[in-house]
Amino acid sequence: VNEREELGPADLAFIERHRVAHLATAARNGQPQAIPVCFVVVEGNIYTPIDAKPKISDARRLRRVRNIADNPRVSFVVDDYDEDWSRLAYVIVTGLAELREPSSPEHPAVVARLEAKYRQYATLPLDGHPLIRIVPMKVTRWSWRETTGHSLPSPAP
Amino acid sequence: VNEREELGPADLAFIERHRVAHLATAARNGQPQAIPVCFVVVEGNIYTPIDAKPKISDARRLRRVRNIADNPRVSFVVDDYDEDWSRLAYVIVTGLAELREPSSPEHPAVVARLEAKYRQYATLPLDGHPLIRIVPMKVTRWSWRETTGHSLPSPAP
Repeated sequence: VNEREELGPADLAFIERHRVAHLATAARNGQPQAIPVCFVVVEGNIYTPIDAKPKISDARRLRRVRNIADNPRVSFVVDDYDEDWSRLAYVIVTGLAELREPSSPEHPAVVARLEAKYRQYATLPLDGHPLIRIVPMKVTRWSWRETTGHSLPSPAP
Repeated sequence: VNEREELGPADLAFIERHRVAHLATAARNGQPQAIPVCFVVVEGNIYTPIDAKPKISDARRLRRVRNIADNPRVSFVVDDYDEDWSRLAYVIVTGLAELREPSSPEHPAVVARLEAKYRQYATLPLDGHPLIRIVPMKVTRWSWRETTGHSLPSPAP
């Protein structure tokens, strides 16, 4: 149970074509928090910056970081919503998260990847900000089509 | 701490113009799960069906339900992603969740609301399926503009 599950090529392709994901962390008392996040995948791990956005509030920023410090278990989901429900799909990565300080060896490369993916960071430098690293432990893939083998019957108009 | 926080008119307007939200539950061991969900708000509570979609897998369906049975604390987030980050916004509802069986008094009204919002349910009847009810305990609102008071500076092209 302590071995990582690698993201496969199909998982990576699905995850990387998304601009936003949702991250769930949980406090020591079991209270989860779900929040939208930007991210990149570097060498099989998922990274999300924690203070790129302007002051959300100290408490808000701390919540995610405090949760991870207390409990590294997280859930990271990337999904497609479409009004044609036969196109619904998601990948859930159950993982272990850790705060990675600017001094961590991978920091410059991950920041470069984030800046390449999100040009919005040109005016919001990530240097000096820690990152959250998520090591995938379990990958759950679902899509309507692959699960059912067929499209959704069309509802009456 | 055990009193609910009502969703205000602005929260409701923001939440109700979305078709998909993300729900985080957490297992007894602290492992959270984030998952996309359909939903409606009825009389101030949020409802999400648990088996409208075709057999995701018994385990998957049970996970969310088992988590809630073990730990009613959940986090429900609705958010706007836009490449213009000055339009980023979210509402997080921290709440207490409970499974509501088809025999529960509000079930028919909630199912009617779900069917009215999502015409996809015309071919996926919700009768006989339980719902998850989320009672809001705390509402966290964030938007880039309201937080910073200004738009994102334009990055170099």
